[in-house]
Amino acid sequence: MKIRILAVGKLKQGPLAELISQYLKRCQWQIKITEIDHSPRENEILLTKISDDDHVILLDENGKNISSQQLSETFETLQNSSRSKIVFIIGGATGVGEYIKKRADMTLAFGSQTWPHMLVRVMLVEQIYRAEQILKGHPYHKV
Amino acid sequence: MKIRILAVGKLKQGPLAELISQYLKRCQWQIKITEIDHSPRENEILLTKISDDDHVILLDENGKNISSQQLSETFETLQNSSRSKIVFIIGGATGVGEYIKKRADMTLAFGSQTWPHMLVRVMLVEQIYRAEQILKGHPYHKV
Repeated sequence: MKIRILAVGKLKQGPLAELISQYLKRCQWQIKITEIDHSPRENEILLTKISDDDHVILLDENGKNISSQQLSETFETLQNSSRSKIVFIIGGATGVGEYIKKRADMTLAFGSQTWPHMLVRVMLVEQIYRAEQILKGHPYHKV
Repeated sequence: MKIRILAVGKLKQGPLAELISQYLKRCQWQIKITEIDHSPRENEILLTKISDDDHVILLDENGKNISSQQLSETFETLQNSSRSKIVFIIGGATGVGEYIKKRADMTLAFGSQTWPHMLVRVMLVEQIYRAEQILKGHPYHKV
């Protein structure tokens, strides 16, 4: 499964970057993180990185709250579909534009809370790794 | 405001511990983290650390999903009450016993997802820091 994370902003070296790299190493799915510079054109640039047949999941606090189990089922369905890849979008501190919201096939929230967008990257790669383990039947995820 | 976090398990040195220590340094509220060794008696020991007049908030994925704004209002209410301190409880990988659940004044969830309990520590200190900034009217939290 090909997974791409499009994220606005540049994450500096430090504990967050270290955590992300730990999860990427543990995950067998191919995850590529592409950073987009924060700028007035960030939304336009985001859009150019998405292909028509990508399954786009936008991270947004007003999105849908689904369990880790349900997220893994979404991955399973997509694995068996014709979608070439899953693209997650994490906007910057001010969120993303309306046309990105419209393009998204799904909008996902991690609770009702607001999170720093750089921490959301860690939370997302953890959930992707967890989804992989759930589909493998690995005890990492104890239901 | 006195805040204590009772958490099961020993967090090793590394990026998670570093992130927690960064938030603790930035937060003006007194936050003390007490670790309880993972053992068959962890629930009993947890209970001995709670006083009768503590306001206990249990972290649990089946808990209530409230926004960061609402969490800050909970802090504000408690600041003005007679409760001496707020005690957050983060159980181990297998959760906490029924009597801890019953003792809790509130059960809080970070979304419908399952999170590693060590990452929950980071998420919790971030939300406490955010609540402090909200009550101060600081732009860290942009609504």
